[in-house]
This record gives sequence, C-alpha cells and structure tokens, in this order.
Amino acid sequence: MSSSPPPRFDDVLAAAARIAPHARMTPVLCEPALDALAGAALHFKAEHLQRGGAFKFRGACNAVWALQDARAARGVLTHSSGNHGAALALAAAGRGIAAHVVVPQGAVRTKLALIEAAGATVHPCAPTLAAREAACAALQRELGATLIHPYEDAQVIAGQGTAALELLHALPDLDVLVVPVGGGGLAAGTALVLAACAPHCVLVLAEPAGADDTARSLATGTRVTAFTPQTVCDGLRAGIGAPNFEILRAARAEVVTVDDGQTRAAMRLLWQYLKQTVEPSGATVLAAVLAQPARFAGRRVGLVLSGGNVDLDAIAFCARCGTG
Amino acid sequence: MSSSPPPRFDDVLAAAARIAPHARMTPVLCEPALDALAGAALHFKAEHLQRGGAFKFRGACNAVWALQDARAARGVLTHSSGNHGAALALAAAGRGIAAHVVVPQGAVRTKLALIEAAGATVHPCAPTLAAREAACAALQRELGATLIHPYEDAQVIAGQGTAALELLHALPDLDVLVVPVGGGGLAAGTALVLAACAPHCVLVLAEPAGADDTARSLATGTRVTAFTPQTVCDGLRAGIGAPNFEILRAARAEVVTVDDGQTRAAMRLLWQYLKQTVEPSGATVLAAVLAQPARFAGRRVGLVLSGGNVDLDAIAFCARCGTG
Repeated sequence: MSSSPPPRFDDVLAAAARIAPHARMTPVLCEPALDALAGAALHFKAEHLQRGGAFKFRGACNAVWALQDARAARGVLTHSSGNHGAALALAAAGRGIAAHVVVPQGAVRTKLALIEAAGATVHPCAPTLAAREAACAALQRELGATLIHPYEDAQVIAGQGTAALELLHALPDLDVLVVPVGGGGLAAGTALVLAACAPHCVLVLAEPAGADDTARSLATGTRVTAFTPQTVCDGLRAGIGAPNFEILRAARAEVVTVDDGQTRAAMRLLWQYLKQTVEPSGATVLAAVLAQPARFAGRRVGLVLSGGNVDLDAIAFCARCGTG
Repeated sequence: MSSSPPPRFDDVLAAAARIAPHARMTPVLCEPALDALAGAALHFKAEHLQRGGAFKFRGACNAVWALQDARAARGVLTHSSGNHGAALALAAAGRGIAAHVVVPQGAVRTKLALIEAAGATVHPCAPTLAAREAACAALQRELGATLIHPYEDAQVIAGQGTAALELLHALPDLDVLVVPVGGGGLAAGTALVLAACAPHCVLVLAEPAGADDTARSLATGTRVTAFTPQTVCDGLRAGIGAPNFEILRAARAEVVTVDDGQTRAAMRLLWQYLKQTVEPSGATVLAAVLAQPARFAGRRVGLVLSGGNVDLDAIAFCARCGTG
C-alpha cells in the first residue's frame, strides 16, 4: 500500500501536463448501431489505443516522471499481471531508467510479451499476492528501485484520471461515465475528475460478478480484502485498493456487476460494430450498460474502453469448437 | 458491364462533394510496432470505420445521389456478396428510395445481416455470375430499378477514389499507396487520384494469389475473365472489370499477390497491434508490404484498410481447435 497522501484533483491536472509529451490523446468513438442497441448515446474513450494498449500508461508515466532524478536513476519496480507492467516498462524506457516487473505465473502471454518488448526485466513469481509482495520487497532491498504500485500509488491514480479529463473536455455534458473497476486506480482517478469538473455526472463502475469486492465493499462500507477472483477479465482480478475505496465511497460511485457471459457478448459487439479489438476487462463497460438499460436510456454515456491487449489464441470466437 | 464513359479525375472531385454530407471522413491510423515490423512508415486509411463497415459506401452513395429524381424513384438494384450490397442499401435508405440486392448463396452472414438491417430487399440466387446477372436482369425488367454495378459503374469508381483523395490531403508526400484489388473499383478510383494529385506515388495492388486475375491481366495486357477464385478474401473474389483494367493498365499499377496464410497473419497483426478488426480482404495490403519488404523499406506507405465486416464465428483465431 502507498504511504503517500491520497491524490486530489490538482494532482490530476499536474499529471495531464506531465504526461502530455509522452501519452496519446486517444480518440472518442461512436457507432449508431450500438447506440440503437443501448437506447442511449454512447461515447467510447478509446484507451485501448493508448501507448501500451491500455489506460495504464497514463498512471505509470505520471509516476515515473514525477520522481526526482536521483531516485529515478535507481529504477522502478512493480508487480503486475499485465497492462501496468507493460505501461511501467514503456514509461521507464521513455525516461531511460530501468524497470523491473514481478509477474505471476499464468499472466496473459500478449501482455508478458509487451513488458519484455519494452525492455523491462521480468521476475516470475507464484500467482499469489503474498508471493508478489515478497518478490517486490526482495528486489527493493537489492536494487533500491522505487515501487510503483499498480493502483494504490497517488501519482498512478492521478495519472489514470487524465482519461476522464480528456473525455469531459470533448464532451462536458455527459450524464453518466462508466469505467471498469479492479484495483480502482482508474475508478478513483475518474472520481476526482468528476467531482471537480462534472458533479452532475454519475460515476458507474463496471465490475465482474466473479470479482465483485468493490460492489460489496461500497454496499457495506467496509473494504473486502479476502476473495478469490473468478473471471475472464484478467485486468480486473485485483481487490479494491485502500485509498481507492475511500475516494469511491466519498464519490458515491455506483457499481453494476456483469457476469463473464455478458462481458464476452459485449466484447463481441465491440469487435463487430465498433471494429475495435477491446480486451474483456475493457468490454465490461458496455456489458454494464446493456445489463441495466433502464439506467442509461436516453442519456449521454461516456465509457472508457480500458485496454485492448487480447490474447487472440485464448479469447477469440470460434464456431468450429464453440468458443465464445 | 456499364455502358457509361469511363470516369475521370473530375468525377472523383464531384463525388467527394456529393458524398460529403453522407459518408464519414475516416481517420488515418499509425502504430510504431507495425512500422518496426515493416521497416517503413505505414499510414492506414481506416475504411473499415466507414459507414457500412467498408469503403464501398463511397461509391454506392455517389451512384445513388447522382441519379435524377425520376430515375431514383424507381429504386436501385445490384448483385453483391456483401459490402457493396450493404453500402447500396444504406445509400438508398439515405435518399429514401428502394434497394434490391441479389445475393449469391454462401455470402458472409455478417454482410447479409447488414444488407437486411439497412432495409433492402434481398433476392437469393445461385452462386454463379450467370445466375446473378439473370436475376438482376429479371428484376430490372420487373421493377425498372437502376442497376448499380459493384465495380464497373463509373460513379462507383469515382466514389471509391475519394478515399485516396482524403488520404493524400492528409499525407501529400506518400511514396507508395497500397489498395486491395478484386473487381477493381477502389483500385481504378485510386489510380485516377494518383495520376492527378500525386504522380510520384506508386500504386501497388494487393491481390489474393487464389484470385490473381488482375496480376495476370496486367502482365499479359489481356484481361483474364475465366477463373475460379480460391481465397479467404470474400471481398476480392470478383474478376477485374473491363474499365477498371483499362484504367489500371494506363496507370502502370503494380501487383503484389499474397496467399491466404500471409493474409491471415497480417489480419492477426492488425487485430493485435492496431486493435482494429479488419476483414481478410482489408488485411491483404499489410500482407503485401510484409511479403516484399525491400520494395517498401524506408518509404512512406499509405494502405487502405478496405473493410471490417468479419464473420467472427468463421474467421477468428482459436487455440483450442487450431483455427488461425
């Protein structure tokens, strides 16, 4: 867990300035066929077209460039099953510093390849949180590298908020903004932006039913920390972070849970009609809108397509064998 | 075959003005990972994001809106295995006139669904050119509708040229422009634009090896008309049209043939790195660049991603059963 103070909206503004030379300003995509299906005006923020194939580059880039030179020179370190690891590797390469990524066994092959392609050193570990944290602690002691937590780090949260900032700049009148929630970096960053820029806009979190700790945490007011995720959404298996939970509770964020069947159906719609290869985690936002149509009917809805690093071998649709 | 005079560059300019209120100005996409793979600067004109999911809307829209009111009122008619049919249906719906589409059995399901969704009347026929033409002739007699040929019609060719016009407006310094060739509507329209706007730019046609009649026609100077296409590229099975062949011969267009394995590999790269679900026909352009890297090395290359109407059930990649 991060020991830094929780981020504020000013930190998101600073992040936007800091990452501007490095990150892509992603487009907003629309498709009338999907609007007709949803009965709402859908505006997709295409973060799968972000560098590294996911919004994660925003937070990682902000954290890397926020470091003082002397500290940065000792490199950065994280544990990640995928997109954050790749994002940190890319961001570190951009600053010319070393990146070390502890990767649990079973990570998506495509994401592992991205981490390696960006020049990071990969450290495999057992697929448990305890093993991840032990490996990170050992590397911190050995290398003096700075740990950049995937979603609890204040600079990471602030960086992720810049996606919503861009979307609201283009579309200030959104009624609802839907983002996926796993560890809650994107969700918390988005909440900071909505509170400051669009308090009328409802924040809806799309969460896999098989990893619904955020829904349960917000419902009871107590953060759930012990659960075993069961979902195809490999990017949303983390439990909600401590600062993230506090920010989301204060923002009165709402959660819509979706099962993997709904997510796969939504992913298929995005591939078919939006012509975008979005990964399962990113498709949860459309799944949430289609799961509760009355909630969104006739409204202007923003949706963050969070990533597109699909393992085509494992995830695609196949009539021959019935996959999908 | 069309009996109208062959189109000229002025017709492309007129088409651009005519379709502007109806067609999308599609984006140009780039991806450093694909540039690295090709050793060239690749600029993808995203026609799979065009209305109807393919560049075909440009030509169909131009042809529909070029009709005099009295003639338009009797409706339009075509035979098409897919994207042209859907495009004509959409264009006719936009003008509020009837569209009739003769569809050979075995057409891609997704494309058939698009034709129906746009409100056209579908007339099934046997999957031979003779059966298509007989069905069209019968409907013409019965309805008085105007036949809009998928690729030999002068207004269709002129309309397809507008994609290259937009691309060169954004990137006037392209060294090479690669487009797929089937019947040759896009290829011929592009040739007209290059001759007028960018005579330094080489036109390369990507053609499936299993339907390489254009390559053989241009090599011998005599249009090949009898062949049986064998390719996964359902949009490129038509033989090169008569006016199309004349335009391409005059333009000294070059052809790179690619086998289906190369096309599937290129399609996979586009899905994985560009995050765009491009159909096989549209992936031939990247396949051509990767098949002959020396030809494109270090150059500024435009590529028209011609369509994205993939039948996900039939085409996707699956590790479980080995598809792809």
